[in-house]
Amino acid sequence: MESFQLSELLLKKIADLILAKKNVTLIKLVQDIHFADLAEIINELSKEQGVYLIKLFDSEKTSEILTELDEDIREKILESLSIKEIADGIKELDSDDAADILAELSDERKEKVISEISDGNLADDLIELLSYEEDCAGGLMAKELVKANENWTVLRCLSEIKKQGENVTRVHSIYVVDNKEKLIGRLSLKDLIIAPSKNKIKDIYISNVDSVNVLEKGEDVAKIMSKYDLEAIPVIDDKKHLVGRITIDDIVDFIKDEAEEDYLLAAGIQGDVEADDSIFELTKARLPWLFLGLVGGLGSVFILEGFEEFMTNPNYKTLFFFTPLIAAMAGNVGVQSSAIIVQGLANDIVRGSLLQRLIKELGLSLINGIILSLFTMLFGIAINQPIELSFVISISMLCVIVVAALIGTSIPIILNKRGIDPAIATGPFITTSNDIFGIFLFFYIAKIFLL
Amino acid sequence: MESFQLSELLLKKIADLILAKKNVTLIKLVQDIHFADLAEIINELSKEQGVYLIKLFDSEKTSEILTELDEDIREKILESLSIKEIADGIKELDSDDAADILAELSDERKEKVISEISDGNLADDLIELLSYEEDCAGGLMAKELVKANENWTVLRCLSEIKKQGENVTRVHSIYVVDNKEKLIGRLSLKDLIIAPSKNKIKDIYISNVDSVNVLEKGEDVAKIMSKYDLEAIPVIDDKKHLVGRITIDDIVDFIKDEAEEDYLLAAGIQGDVEADDSIFELTKARLPWLFLGLVGGLGSVFILEGFEEFMTNPNYKTLFFFTPLIAAMAGNVGVQSSAIIVQGLANDIVRGSLLQRLIKELGLSLINGIILSLFTMLFGIAINQPIELSFVISISMLCVIVVAALIGTSIPIILNKRGIDPAIATGPFITTSNDIFGIFLFFYIAKIFLL
Repeated sequence: MESFQLSELLLKKIADLILAKKNVTLIKLVQDIHFADLAEIINELSKEQGVYLIKLFDSEKTSEILTELDEDIREKILESLSIKEIADGIKELDSDDAADILAELSDERKEKVISEISDGNLADDLIELLSYEEDCAGGLMAKELVKANENWTVLRCLSEIKKQGENVTRVHSIYVVDNKEKLIGRLSLKDLIIAPSKNKIKDIYISNVDSVNVLEKGEDVAKIMSKYDLEAIPVIDDKKHLVGRITIDDIVDFIKDEAEEDYLLAAGIQGDVEADDSIFELTKARLPWLFLGLVGGLGSVFILEGFEEFMTNPNYKTLFFFTPLIAAMAGNVGVQSSAIIVQGLANDIVRGSLLQRLIKELGLSLINGIILSLFTMLFGIAINQPIELSFVISISMLCVIVVAALIGTSIPIILNKRGIDPAIATGPFITTSNDIFGIFLFFYIAKIFLL
Repeated sequence: MESFQLSELLLKKIADLILAKKNVTLIKLVQDIHFADLAEIINELSKEQGVYLIKLFDSEKTSEILTELDEDIREKILESLSIKEIADGIKELDSDDAADILAELSDERKEKVISEISDGNLADDLIELLSYEEDCAGGLMAKELVKANENWTVLRCLSEIKKQGENVTRVHSIYVVDNKEKLIGRLSLKDLIIAPSKNKIKDIYISNVDSVNVLEKGEDVAKIMSKYDLEAIPVIDDKKHLVGRITIDDIVDFIKDEAEEDYLLAAGIQGDVEADDSIFELTKARLPWLFLGLVGGLGSVFILEGFEEFMTNPNYKTLFFFTPLIAAMAGNVGVQSSAIIVQGLANDIVRGSLLQRLIKELGLSLINGIILSLFTMLFGIAINQPIELSFVISISMLCVIVVAALIGTSIPIILNKRGIDPAIATGPFITTSNDIFGIFLFFYIAKIFLL
């Protein structure tokens, strides 16, 4: 398959056909395009064009396109669809995708759509799914799954699966339950095909089955599924009843979203935003961390004022020219140290005690610090700076680097121990605190040596 | 299932049993632990203990544990295993995992292990897999898959699958090939079960099948699989022959690794390292970016020297106390702007031209900048700074914020257009360049107003 590439030309063609209302030609042009690609196209069109295009498809394709659209575009398009159109689309979707779309509607429209759905089971499933938090197992799971009673024969199981399987896009495992609907094991389709047809399920199923509680955090579900290489995991309630199933494709999206949020958070951007969001949303995401930096910067104004006496000495005023260098080193070293710890904590690979970590970081920062300080010393000599001043600058910088590394290492570990997400303790947070601390330390050490 | 939690107690127990050589008790203790958890345990043990423990298991479990170990631990343990032990282990693995382990051996041991494998097909498969780059489709794929000839009947296909399926952990799709082994379509196990047994495969297969070329970059494979929610994708060569299959669990690992590398790169840590690597490796990963920061900082020394004249004026020397604030604002704003663009580029959601982007960023940075500048103005008034000085500081800072945002936005877009990975253009890179530029701009504007 050639990978689909969205071209300006195709977009122009589609927009022109919409303008000319040439539906037959338009349908011919787009009918073989995958729904995920159609969603990309609609993301680029105006709202009116998008609505026009989406209404050309049957409710199955419409609903699939809806699931793939950017959230803000989807919101706009849903507003332009009737209750019946939305309900028809939702019926075609897996229950988890259907619930996600419903969750974006206003309470009033949500209720109307649900009451428009004639299939009572589906409506109940959707109401159940909507009751869970978005980021927990219940919010990620779908109700569609294939289950077998332990007392069935292989033959009966095969014929039941033909029935159940019609609603399930991908079968993965067959979950085995007892007469009380409790999850007791699993069975792969392959095992079932290979088994003699008169065997009972209870003779062939595997009792060792991973599962997650319906309230488990999405992050932990992702960890379990990726650690054990699972492609689907059954979801149970507190009484161990089988209530749903999470498939790996939803977890892939979840992992990507989490990684993106962490990436932006480390850059001082809070919340689930992206480049195409509105200026208001982006300001809301960015201003708080900039404000933190501002407060820290104003704090360092006071600190520098405290060392004003250096300015009166023509030899020592040079120290003030080094403040950006010191702030940069403190910030960069701190961000490196904290980022690698935050990453390690997320992967549960930060072993040993805080003390052991600090000893390692001490060694690491001493090596980096000595190399960088020596270079700074050489720079000082090269520009004919008084040798004692160059020496003091280098020594102070070395201390700043070591302390910045230790701060960068400790803060995430301490936060993590207190149950606070350590991911906030990198980026602007560490940069700002290390800036202040680094500048103070630099001038303080210089003062000890020089004044 | 209770999620496994590695405890100090369990580790201690295992270490004691190893010391006492109480194999029977030890095996009883660990036999029901999942191999991914056993790998976690061995990661914590000493090399000798790890080797002792791993040798207690049969070659199937040994090999599965090996695939899950940390790379540096695995390397050590492989050194302690004989050629025969490694070969026995590798035979039990899927070919992609086997090739990954082989790739870590020295060329000499690699050849010995391969010639120890009696199954000629497997040996050929491994040699083929080893010939691909690690990060392309060929390096990610496994040779195990289930394929059906279009001319088979459903009945024959079912019986062939029983045979082929024994070597394939998860079947997913059945790939349909013509008589020349060219990939022409796919079939799900479910479709096969539901179809009448006398039908021919050519009557029931789906001709629309996604595939990737064996040389396709891993990153692009991940994009395709996650965009189209695929759980497995067939790999073809230039002649469209089916040569392998990539499953989503390998892609999950790939996505996580890539996200981690990007996260660390944004913090100025280059390459595939983690908190537990050696000090030498960590220094190699961290020093280059620190050095960049050092050079930038030394550059700003010269810039500040150029504005030395401010120091002689008692009213204006305060400006030097503001350098860390200005550097911090320039750096933080630049990192925010670049990070969100880098993220957007990675997801192909950066729409519109560079000019449109810059206009949006101009608006955004003006809003943020005006709020922050007003606050700085108020701060100046509160500490009884001359009002004209506060005004100049605020205006200069506003300019710095706007320019930093525009630089942060442009650089990744320009790099991306030139085919350079924009991910390098955030973190220390943007911080350093914006520090220098911000400080210069700040003093330059101040000079225009004040001197």
